[in-house]
Amino acid sequence: MKDFFKVASIEQVLDLRNKFPKLETITVPLADACGRISGASIVAPENLPGFRRATMDGYAVRAASTFGATESNPAYLTIVGASRMGESPNFSVKTGEAARISTGAMLPEGADSVVMVEHTEALDATTLEIYRSAAPGQYVVQPGEDFAREDIVLTEGQPLRPQEIGLLAAFGIDSVQVCRQPVIAVISTGDEVTPITEPLHPGKVRDINTHTLSALIRTCGATPVSYGIISDDRESLQRILTVAAEASDMVLISGGSSVGSRDVTIDALSHLSDTHILIHGISISPGKPTILATFHRKAIWGLPGHVVSTMVVFLKVVRPFIHHISGAPPTRFQGSVRSARLSRNVASAQGRVDYIRVKLRESEGGLMADPILGKSGLINTMVKADGLVEIGLNVEGLNEGALVEVELLV
Amino acid sequence: MKDFFKVASIEQVLDLRNKFPKLETITVPLADACGRISGASIVAPENLPGFRRATMDGYAVRAASTFGATESNPAYLTIVGASRMGESPNFSVKTGEAARISTGAMLPEGADSVVMVEHTEALDATTLEIYRSAAPGQYVVQPGEDFAREDIVLTEGQPLRPQEIGLLAAFGIDSVQVCRQPVIAVISTGDEVTPITEPLHPGKVRDINTHTLSALIRTCGATPVSYGIISDDRESLQRILTVAAEASDMVLISGGSSVGSRDVTIDALSHLSDTHILIHGISISPGKPTILATFHRKAIWGLPGHVVSTMVVFLKVVRPFIHHISGAPPTRFQGSVRSARLSRNVASAQGRVDYIRVKLRESEGGLMADPILGKSGLINTMVKADGLVEIGLNVEGLNEGALVEVELLV
Repeated sequence: MKDFFKVASIEQVLDLRNKFPKLETITVPLADACGRISGASIVAPENLPGFRRATMDGYAVRAASTFGATESNPAYLTIVGASRMGESPNFSVKTGEAARISTGAMLPEGADSVVMVEHTEALDATTLEIYRSAAPGQYVVQPGEDFAREDIVLTEGQPLRPQEIGLLAAFGIDSVQVCRQPVIAVISTGDEVTPITEPLHPGKVRDINTHTLSALIRTCGATPVSYGIISDDRESLQRILTVAAEASDMVLISGGSSVGSRDVTIDALSHLSDTHILIHGISISPGKPTILATFHRKAIWGLPGHVVSTMVVFLKVVRPFIHHISGAPPTRFQGSVRSARLSRNVASAQGRVDYIRVKLRESEGGLMADPILGKSGLINTMVKADGLVEIGLNVEGLNEGALVEVELLV
Repeated sequence: MKDFFKVASIEQVLDLRNKFPKLETITVPLADACGRISGASIVAPENLPGFRRATMDGYAVRAASTFGATESNPAYLTIVGASRMGESPNFSVKTGEAARISTGAMLPEGADSVVMVEHTEALDATTLEIYRSAAPGQYVVQPGEDFAREDIVLTEGQPLRPQEIGLLAAFGIDSVQVCRQPVIAVISTGDEVTPITEPLHPGKVRDINTHTLSALIRTCGATPVSYGIISDDRESLQRILTVAAEASDMVLISGGSSVGSRDVTIDALSHLSDTHILIHGISISPGKPTILATFHRKAIWGLPGHVVSTMVVFLKVVRPFIHHISGAPPTRFQGSVRSARLSRNVASAQGRVDYIRVKLRESEGGLMADPILGKSGLINTMVKADGLVEIGLNVEGLNEGALVEVELLV
């Protein structure tokens, strides 16, 4: 299986998502369900609405009683009562009769349409003049017109937005089966890495990656658990990796930036029983030296040491795997994308996908994307950036003025 | 001040944000800061990086020692040591000398550049052949090159994304001053409205709005507090409104859908001391019968009864006010927007801004937006929708094929 170890394309990597099972479902209160993924299909237990409702303030009538009515030749109807909000009228409306009704109230039996109050005049307590013909069904919502009993209301894997929460409330459903959100272990490696709360000695750097990755994990709705900083030592890494994989649904090893440090990660994974290395290198930049392994059907990632590379790999590669095990559908119109024009030429190497960082600004000709200069390993390039622009595998670069899709970093 | 009560444009309403003060700042642990708004500017307490770091694996040298080196005429240097990861080298590199170095390690004193390992060959433990000239500063990050001491790292009002969290970690900052997130009271009104956990009697409807609004409030990072369902009665509403406004930063009254019900809300607000009604009606559809009042410098909203109207008003009007009091800057390239072509003509009334719901689909010609048909009060139109398209104040409609910006409902 050595073939696997040639550098893989990003599509080849993403295809491996199916090797990892979706997490089980759990039941949560409706108040906690927004932003989660539905874990089951739900069928409408009843009609919505459950009764014929008026959609205007006015009078409930039989449409036939109004046929031919005009300003000069109004229809005259007898007001026989009022349909009160939240009540079931205890009378019916016959031909030649009308009942006062408010938006949202139930139509009395016999009535089949509503005349807007603006097209009527009540001459006294019981006599109503109507100036327009009403069509049957006018200003009425029929039972089940929003959702009929037995309609599929939600499908498994559907993201629950505020409107889906409202829909469940409409059916009196106060708890929902959703996909469990993953727990993701973060292991930082590198002899040079120091916890952020400790004094920084010369030659050391603070543990940026644990904090950046934890924040990224939270933006996916998942829970990060930090396993601290491990020195560049195979046995220590194997020990903590085994514990972390056992206790979580995915493991991110944020590698030291040197070749030696990366060797420790691949070495630790290679020597762990039940581990298969699926990917060692992806044809993207930044982010090439990424490792993906399976360990007890869980994904173990070896991420590049530079925080910028780690962020790009997380957003473009790891995040789709988190969404996959979280039960989210593979394609959705989500994420924030803006069209903009490049403000200068950008070079790119063929044979890899490049992700360049850009800053957006409004200009007379529309939104402009300014490529961010500076050494790619510097975090300031991500802090200045509003978004990423992808330059495809077989593209040599993009010209000034090219229309690009900017994926916002939010 | 009766002029206020003519229907206001959406811009006039949004201009009123400045009447409402921003909330105070609080300090939170770094782990909880992602997604929040910075409450203060932060200046770099030190250089980042703090020392000269290699960005390649190879040899640290004085560039001058390599000048003129080629494959056929290599330079020969003496290897005097290795710079270990996380340590400060205890030796220096003089002309004619080299030190082994890994990506991320500290350059020894005297060295000013790094030669990639690929351009060298170690002939024995102390003799190095170099095949290329190195420029001074090559593959080196200088102290402060990412951020220099005293640089402004974060400004007040800046959203904290994962990269800003990483940046704070890089400076050893483990707690952050952020804007407090608002607590928002939700009051449902209407004689016809029943809590979702209670049996539904004929003519009643379940309390969709409290649950939908609470979910929308959570998507803004704010905390919803429900004050239950109040019948259409001025005094009850005034009593609960006073309590809710006292205990929260903003109040949303989700009105009954009938004119009578709306009258109760405006009546309650008009009779409350220290209350000023700023807006009664906005020229948008859906959402026209919206009320905005101030009460002790807090915004009190009277929202339409229909859940679809309430959602649109929340997204287009209320949400910017929540962002404002949360300390967020008024304009940012945020929100999820996709460009698409309308698949059919859409009519619109002049003199108001229309928000139509659309479903997106991929087609050969790019992304298409299918306008969603059906009565506007039905929640299924929002459940089917991927996004909203705005039709401007003085536009009579949009033609099939028109390029539109779709704001995604996520």
